[in-house]
Amino acid sequence: MNEDAPISPFSDEYFMKQAIQEAQKAFDANEIPVGAVVVCNNRIIARAHNLTERLNDVTAHAEMQAITAAANFLGGKYLIDCTLYVTLEPCNMCAGALAWAQITKIIYGAKDEKRGFTRFTPSPLHPRTEVVSGIMKEESSELIKEFFTKKRMSL
Amino acid sequence: MNEDAPISPFSDEYFMKQAIQEAQKAFDANEIPVGAVVVCNNRIIARAHNLTERLNDVTAHAEMQAITAAANFLGGKYLIDCTLYVTLEPCNMCAGALAWAQITKIIYGAKDEKRGFTRFTPSPLHPRTEVVSGIMKEESSELIKEFFTKKRMSL
Repeated sequence: MNEDAPISPFSDEYFMKQAIQEAQKAFDANEIPVGAVVVCNNRIIARAHNLTERLNDVTAHAEMQAITAAANFLGGKYLIDCTLYVTLEPCNMCAGALAWAQITKIIYGAKDEKRGFTRFTPSPLHPRTEVVSGIMKEESSELIKEFFTKKRMSL
Repeated sequence: MNEDAPISPFSDEYFMKQAIQEAQKAFDANEIPVGAVVVCNNRIIARAHNLTERLNDVTAHAEMQAITAAANFLGGKYLIDCTLYVTLEPCNMCAGALAWAQITKIIYGAKDEKRGFTRFTPSPLHPRTEVVSGIMKEESSELIKEFFTKKRMSL
């Protein structure tokens, strides 16, 4: 995709670009660069990026923080009529949390062959949750590749 | 097990009883009564109980809070040489978090047929994590049964 091409507001690409901006913040903080936003009625109600290093906490994935923040915004535990945009396929922990939240839709960019939730049977998601993958997958995975290349070079 | 029987310190029953005490706190706060402790070198380094209602947050399971608290105590993200005692079989989200934490051992009381992590293939746990189930399972499930009986009666 041409970086300069206009992106319609309220499109999946628009919201995924916001998630990528969150991932960039993680990258800049030397965290594995994953970002997420939660959208409800075309409005971003939560933004988060991975903070596992800064918080010294394996549970501080972008999705986990986005779920907590979105529930806080909505004043209820369940993310009905909400869509999570996340740059990387959620891991099993995050999929479990998204199941408890009964989120309506999950849209992820890059696939995570090694840690992604789609490896598991039965599906860890809530049966009513819709999943879309591959939105801006190149842009989503670019930061992650760059992060690990940089890490390896500094070894 | 006779409630009045002495329990050796540093036994699995001793630590599970501590987890049941945490579950009782959840029960008293009208939360689904699940409790957990993390033990490292025979010392309890974290205690937690389910707080999903009070915190309005599906991620606030006893285990999740115990992982975060134990990592905070240890000053590192990984729970190597730690044992989690939890009254109920962890759900998939908590199993995923315990995998990221690379916890050495998980000991749970009651089985959760519907939501427990053992339903999933491949195992969501870290390959080196040892699992023991059924320690004080009657005592562990008693509070949960009582909780749901009370709920149904109040409907």
